[in-house]
Amino acid sequence: MRDRTGVTVEAGEPEDGLRPGEVALPFDPANEPGASVAFIGRIRSPWARGGPCPKNLREAREQARHAVLEVDRRYRAGLDGLHPGAHLLVLYWMDAARRDLIVQRPRHLDRLVGTFALRSPVRPNPVAVAVVTLQAMDPAAGTLTVDAIDCFDGTPLLDIKPWLPSVDVPGGACEANAQEKQGA
Amino acid sequence: MRDRTGVTVEAGEPEDGLRPGEVALPFDPANEPGASVAFIGRIRSPWARGGPCPKNLREAREQARHAVLEVDRRYRAGLDGLHPGAHLLVLYWMDAARRDLIVQRPRHLDRLVGTFALRSPVRPNPVAVAVVTLQAMDPAAGTLTVDAIDCFDGTPLLDIKPWLPSVDVPGGACEANAQEKQGA
Repeated sequence: MRDRTGVTVEAGEPEDGLRPGEVALPFDPANEPGASVAFIGRIRSPWARGGPCPKNLREAREQARHAVLEVDRRYRAGLDGLHPGAHLLVLYWMDAARRDLIVQRPRHLDRLVGTFALRSPVRPNPVAVAVVTLQAMDPAAGTLTVDAIDCFDGTPLLDIKPWLPSVDVPGGACEANAQEKQGA
Repeated sequence: MRDRTGVTVEAGEPEDGLRPGEVALPFDPANEPGASVAFIGRIRSPWARGGPCPKNLREAREQARHAVLEVDRRYRAGLDGLHPGAHLLVLYWMDAARRDLIVQRPRHLDRLVGTFALRSPVRPNPVAVAVVTLQAMDPAAGTLTVDAIDCFDGTPLLDIKPWLPSVDVPGGACEANAQEKQGA
């Protein structure tokens, strides 16, 4: 049995997947007005579905196991201009996660928190954002090897963008040391 | 007339919106296999559609004009746990941008670059990511005032997440000074 994030359920997990005090929306955000995202590829990660997976990118980096972004052939021309060493924002679709929990009680926290104050994959729009370092790439094959990722193997890829310290760090939170390159 | 990002076209812009050497996909990513995102609210910004808009978040911060995230009533319980001073990742849908350009020639650059090496709103999945600071909030009204934003007034809101230096800064790019709070 899978729980709300697609991980095998531990003993003691309630059947509906709700922990005490959690609030589920009375509708599925998948059916609400919005827009359609295209899957532009897949993420090949060391983490098979149903097994253990780092719960965030910090844990994934500690494991020091790389991942590969596979970009579909039709979108590969969009990779031109990326180079190893670049820092990237990777957006992906956490397709194993339920989307209807609006108040959650994370296991590591044991108190109730609104979904938008959490990085949980369980959210109305399960779009994850990961900051990674590009280690190698083969543009013809559409593959980008990155330092770490915190999602299951096969997770759909939505977007790749350059990570820029001038915009991706809050004013004053740290001094950007400028991997930023002209034009990105 | 609007150009590919929804901004009024300047004199000299070609009719199809393509600059020399740019490559458009032979299909619209909006119709490709993927998933559906729900609009969970709107962004109220100082930038009316069709007029000038900062071209990135750095420029928006320099303008020092705040924006307001309006979260729809049904999703407001998800705001519990957010507090002024927090740094947030805001995801929004750049609905004025065309989605089919895979190689672009940005005006400020005048060379051809793959879409995934740019932060242009023109991309297969026009999901923008902004790092903002929460200045004030009214959870009952579903409003969050943030320091700056680089999108048009009325832009659909997709997600709000805490920005965490332990994961949202590449390893070694800067020393996190820890706005990170337990549990996020």
